[in-house]
Amino acid sequence: MSGTSKEKLLIFQPKGPTAEWTARVQAQHPGLEIIYVNSALPDGSIKPFEELSAEVRGGVTLLSTYIPPPARLIPDVKFVQLPSAGVDKWLGHETPQIAEWVIGSWLSFQHHFVRYHEQMKTGYWEPMFKSTVEDSAGARMGILGYGAIGRQCAHVADSMGMEVYAYTRSPKTTPEARKDDSYCVPGTGDPDGLIPSKWFHGTSQEDINNFLSQDLDILVLCMPLTSETHGIISHEQFEILSKKKTVARGKAINTDALIQALENGKIRGAAVDGADPEPLPSDHSLWKAPNLLITPHVSWQTHRTWERVLAILEINLEKLSKHETPINVVNRKLHY
Amino acid sequence: MSGTSKEKLLIFQPKGPTAEWTARVQAQHPGLEIIYVNSALPDGSIKPFEELSAEVRGGVTLLSTYIPPPARLIPDVKFVQLPSAGVDKWLGHETPQIAEWVIGSWLSFQHHFVRYHEQMKTGYWEPMFKSTVEDSAGARMGILGYGAIGRQCAHVADSMGMEVYAYTRSPKTTPEARKDDSYCVPGTGDPDGLIPSKWFHGTSQEDINNFLSQDLDILVLCMPLTSETHGIISHEQFEILSKKKTVARGKAINTDALIQALENGKIRGAAVDGADPEPLPSDHSLWKAPNLLITPHVSWQTHRTWERVLAILEINLEKLSKHETPINVVNRKLHY
Repeated sequence: MSGTSKEKLLIFQPKGPTAEWTARVQAQHPGLEIIYVNSALPDGSIKPFEELSAEVRGGVTLLSTYIPPPARLIPDVKFVQLPSAGVDKWLGHETPQIAEWVIGSWLSFQHHFVRYHEQMKTGYWEPMFKSTVEDSAGARMGILGYGAIGRQCAHVADSMGMEVYAYTRSPKTTPEARKDDSYCVPGTGDPDGLIPSKWFHGTSQEDINNFLSQDLDILVLCMPLTSETHGIISHEQFEILSKKKTVARGKAINTDALIQALENGKIRGAAVDGADPEPLPSDHSLWKAPNLLITPHVSWQTHRTWERVLAILEINLEKLSKHETPINVVNRKLHY
Repeated sequence: MSGTSKEKLLIFQPKGPTAEWTARVQAQHPGLEIIYVNSALPDGSIKPFEELSAEVRGGVTLLSTYIPPPARLIPDVKFVQLPSAGVDKWLGHETPQIAEWVIGSWLSFQHHFVRYHEQMKTGYWEPMFKSTVEDSAGARMGILGYGAIGRQCAHVADSMGMEVYAYTRSPKTTPEARKDDSYCVPGTGDPDGLIPSKWFHGTSQEDINNFLSQDLDILVLCMPLTSETHGIISHEQFEILSKKKTVARGKAINTDALIQALENGKIRGAAVDGADPEPLPSDHSLWKAPNLLITPHVSWQTHRTWERVLAILEINLEKLSKHETPINVVNRKLHY
């Protein structure tokens, strides 16, 4: 007997399945009850799981949701699929938009778009030669963490005539070691590791400091956020970067050190997607730091996120029906 | 006798020659008097030529300047070099920053950077799912005018996984015809015309309308601005583009039609570098149009502009000293 024939699946996310998806899954899983509820309220905020009616919630055994609800509200749930977990595992699929976020924030900064946006409100431009633009051809990008995201940043940077230096945790001294097998959209990324003109590696702060002192014009932080990398870019590192007034990006930055470096003009600017702490209190001084772009932890977003979540869900329903292990993570704190 | 041995050269621009440049040129042109005056005032505006002392102005025969002064102020001038003319002729050198402007304004728009900038001022983010990002992988860029600038836009778009359609005035049906010999920074551009997956051409409005109806996600306008191209993107064209809500960029746009298309949501947004009319009156309604980025006609700017102007000037001094024709234009309304 199929493992899904008596289950009740609740899809609680901001974008629902297409009629085709539902028809296909229903045909493959006879007996499976499928319910979709939009998790986004009209103003774009997330509907609390508590507000679902008992009828909808009752008896749910399989759940696809953005934020896991308290276990007491889903006593029968055996399997939860979370898009954020999916994002981690399917990271390769999410690289185009994160690399776009990196390149876009860099170009927006270098070409003063926000400044012009502010001037547009007044109907007057600043005097002609108040600012000049530095183009990126010949500029050097340092990428700390050369995985799927870093490789696509390198690919776009290369197309703009930039030079790329890569830093990895372990040494990449052979052509074989420089390859990366994460999924990337065909024609993007740097699967063979051919773009960087120089490679650096190491695990010590000294190794990282040496990398930061390579006259980088922009530093891109793409390494995984772990206790090891948390805050590794701090006061001393901004001091090193200030020799070239680098633009830094990413997490793993000590927030106080970042504010000081921006206020003292040690670095030209910074862009961070999400801040530390997160959520950032509305009276935090990071909001007011000069030459900073913060975005609300959205660089992973794309219009294709939910489509991909449903694709993974479909695979996992198949696995569940055959009593196999699902791909891409379940919340193991729950009952399954 | 050398044609420069009795000349007086005034370099009146915001960035002066290096000591090396001056020493080299002086050695090559004994007898040439070289004077540099900074044309930028401390606030970034342009110093009026009239404010130069008679001593500086007097007897100037060769002039490098941004805006040509009235002829009565430079009665002895035989040769004027203008950077804007240089920019036109050396267009290939100016492509990296213009392509960056195009890609940067597109990414800034697609990733809502200005919106987040406004939210940063308040210390609060909009609700989580209020907006989503559409990444560019698989999106289609239409480039109207496939010269040096268009080709570098295509190169960067291609690196982001985009599809490119090209439109040219004359047919490009053979590999040979698709080549472009304008200078481009090595590794950039598309000198062999290999990137577009589809080519279009023509001189009629009907040809252009057909191109615009190709489900473009972004339209980039890179053709030269002539009386023939002035205002070719008008009401009818925005109607065509609205089927896909394209982002348009560039000149050659009818301003009233643009305002209407933005206000009615026919297109998602637009970025223009410089507006029609220029300068734009401070009470013009274009300033307030939604989803629009205007920049003050700066996309040609780069920190390397003045360095390149001096390089051309050096070549021209050599030409003048040998009584040869200078490269890159003189102002023929003046005496030379």
